[in-house]
Amino acid sequence: MNTKVFELSFQDSTHNQSQVSSHEIKVADTKNKSLQVLEADKTPEQATFNLSSYLSERQALVEGALECSIAVVYPEKIYEAMRYSLLAGGKRLRPILCLAGCELSGGTVEMAMPTACALEMLHTMSLIHDDLPAMDNDDYRRGKLTNHKVYGEDIAILAGDGLLAYAFEFILVQTKGVRSEQLLQVVAKLSHAVAATGLVGGQVVDLESEGLKNINLETLNFIHTHKTGALLEASVVTGALLMGANEEVLQRLSRYAHNIGLAFQIIDDVLDITATAEQLGKTAGKDLQAQKATYPSLLGIEESRYQAKKLVEEAKAELAPFGEKAIPLMAIADYITARTH
Amino acid sequence: MNTKVFELSFQDSTHNQSQVSSHEIKVADTKNKSLQVLEADKTPEQATFNLSSYLSERQALVEGALECSIAVVYPEKIYEAMRYSLLAGGKRLRPILCLAGCELSGGTVEMAMPTACALEMLHTMSLIHDDLPAMDNDDYRRGKLTNHKVYGEDIAILAGDGLLAYAFEFILVQTKGVRSEQLLQVVAKLSHAVAATGLVGGQVVDLESEGLKNINLETLNFIHTHKTGALLEASVVTGALLMGANEEVLQRLSRYAHNIGLAFQIIDDVLDITATAEQLGKTAGKDLQAQKATYPSLLGIEESRYQAKKLVEEAKAELAPFGEKAIPLMAIADYITARTH
Repeated sequence: MNTKVFELSFQDSTHNQSQVSSHEIKVADTKNKSLQVLEADKTPEQATFNLSSYLSERQALVEGALECSIAVVYPEKIYEAMRYSLLAGGKRLRPILCLAGCELSGGTVEMAMPTACALEMLHTMSLIHDDLPAMDNDDYRRGKLTNHKVYGEDIAILAGDGLLAYAFEFILVQTKGVRSEQLLQVVAKLSHAVAATGLVGGQVVDLESEGLKNINLETLNFIHTHKTGALLEASVVTGALLMGANEEVLQRLSRYAHNIGLAFQIIDDVLDITATAEQLGKTAGKDLQAQKATYPSLLGIEESRYQAKKLVEEAKAELAPFGEKAIPLMAIADYITARTH
Repeated sequence: MNTKVFELSFQDSTHNQSQVSSHEIKVADTKNKSLQVLEADKTPEQATFNLSSYLSERQALVEGALECSIAVVYPEKIYEAMRYSLLAGGKRLRPILCLAGCELSGGTVEMAMPTACALEMLHTMSLIHDDLPAMDNDDYRRGKLTNHKVYGEDIAILAGDGLLAYAFEFILVQTKGVRSEQLLQVVAKLSHAVAATGLVGGQVVDLESEGLKNINLETLNFIHTHKTGALLEASVVTGALLMGANEEVLQRLSRYAHNIGLAFQIIDDVLDITATAEQLGKTAGKDLQAQKATYPSLLGIEESRYQAKKLVEEAKAELAPFGEKAIPLMAIADYITARTH
């Protein structure tokens, strides 16, 4: 099964995001009016919150930090390979969720940026290894040749290993103004989210399920909550852990992230059936053709939509006690069910 | 180039080391008289120190801890694959060096055991990935089928990733009685030793050097000090870091480990030429046949032996200020130049 990357499409063009200027953000705004929180029952802050601008701005910040995160030194090839995939674009949702989780807990973007970058390194590692011939055997990702097509399989394996190992050092060396106890919890959380208890375990069940027709809902949930869900959950939660958030906050953010991750996956499955290829920007009906177990194939389209909506509502309910501080995470949750591609 | 594993052969048979009894240790002793430190100028403690017993005992302790380090839960296959390679034997030199580094600094075996196990997880990860078809393409390791031959390439890649990620969580969750600041330094050190700055970088240069005839001494040193040296150095140093050893102690242990790692590699190259296949337990002259750059091919046999001896002497000199506490590490250094296979 090809790796599904949990990402929000909030801009039409895929220009170099580290170069996003205020002008470009403005352009993006006018193109994405639908992303704005415009419902009548929102507070003035919510009504004026523009998700598109927020995401573009954060994405540019993250791109800038990622750009500086790995220098090219001898032996150059491995550093170039790591940078090739790390800087290959993408919406940087995990870093953005981490920054938002930290700010919600009273922390700053600066404080969370090293962890945010580490999350993207870990995510990138999983993509490089998933694309390998022995795994999904993909030649392209985001319109660019995959790592092993450019650098060879051996270097691609090592680039993944290098990113995985480096992510932890990066957090520990770069983070300023966070207590040691909190950093330990962040590292342990990320380690758990990547290991067999997290995305590695999800990928294993996904591989095992390939070609099987009688996958049940429990297995499908396991795949998604581990393969993509674990790192998404860790993204929001580590942001809060950096600030030493209490157990209730951590639990609420954990359930929020769990729900939006699963809702995204369900909507993704639904769109694969209902959206046109033009809307989707990729072949529609791919899952059906591959006879892949999906939420619509197990629950039907209407029930799937209902479940996604319910998950998003529950996600937002978890954030209710945080008031205005939760606006960005609320808007991200809302966008999931609203999207049409 | 095939992965060379830095390991001391201190027992003739490869029985299940977790089952080593005092009887077996005694048997090993009589077989390995040469390992005992018998020189006339040694203190009574050094004269009675038996390296073979020491290593067997420590190996058994580490095996016991590794056996309990990973439980098999759903999805079973990945946990079984991780255990398969982690528990496939070997002398557990890295864990033993870590325990010794901690004890030398005034710490306990108990305190260092989680880090010791993590070192073996990281080492095992590198072996699983090195054996892959895209890398060295080895079917056997230590007489057993390699991970990908048993579980498939996809699972082998994921088993490596899983071990790499889990190692950090294991240290943080399992270590007792160590300050958070020290644990952070341990994690950062290990992360650095595995990433492109360490074994990943060494492996890249090794791959790049394959088939090249004009490898110079600088490149050969880079390969060995990174591919095997970095994790060996981290083994001894993290042991001391757990106890919050001061910079001088850390520097001495670092230089000690650097030297014995390189000396081992040089002697390994020399033995490949001078030892008989019977003594070596593998094909002799393999490096020559493969036209591989080695220390003897660059320096000659006599100069190589001299360099190894000098490195070991320097390694031991670093430990001199620690007196009796350094006896195990001294004995391990001595053994390197004394070995004939």
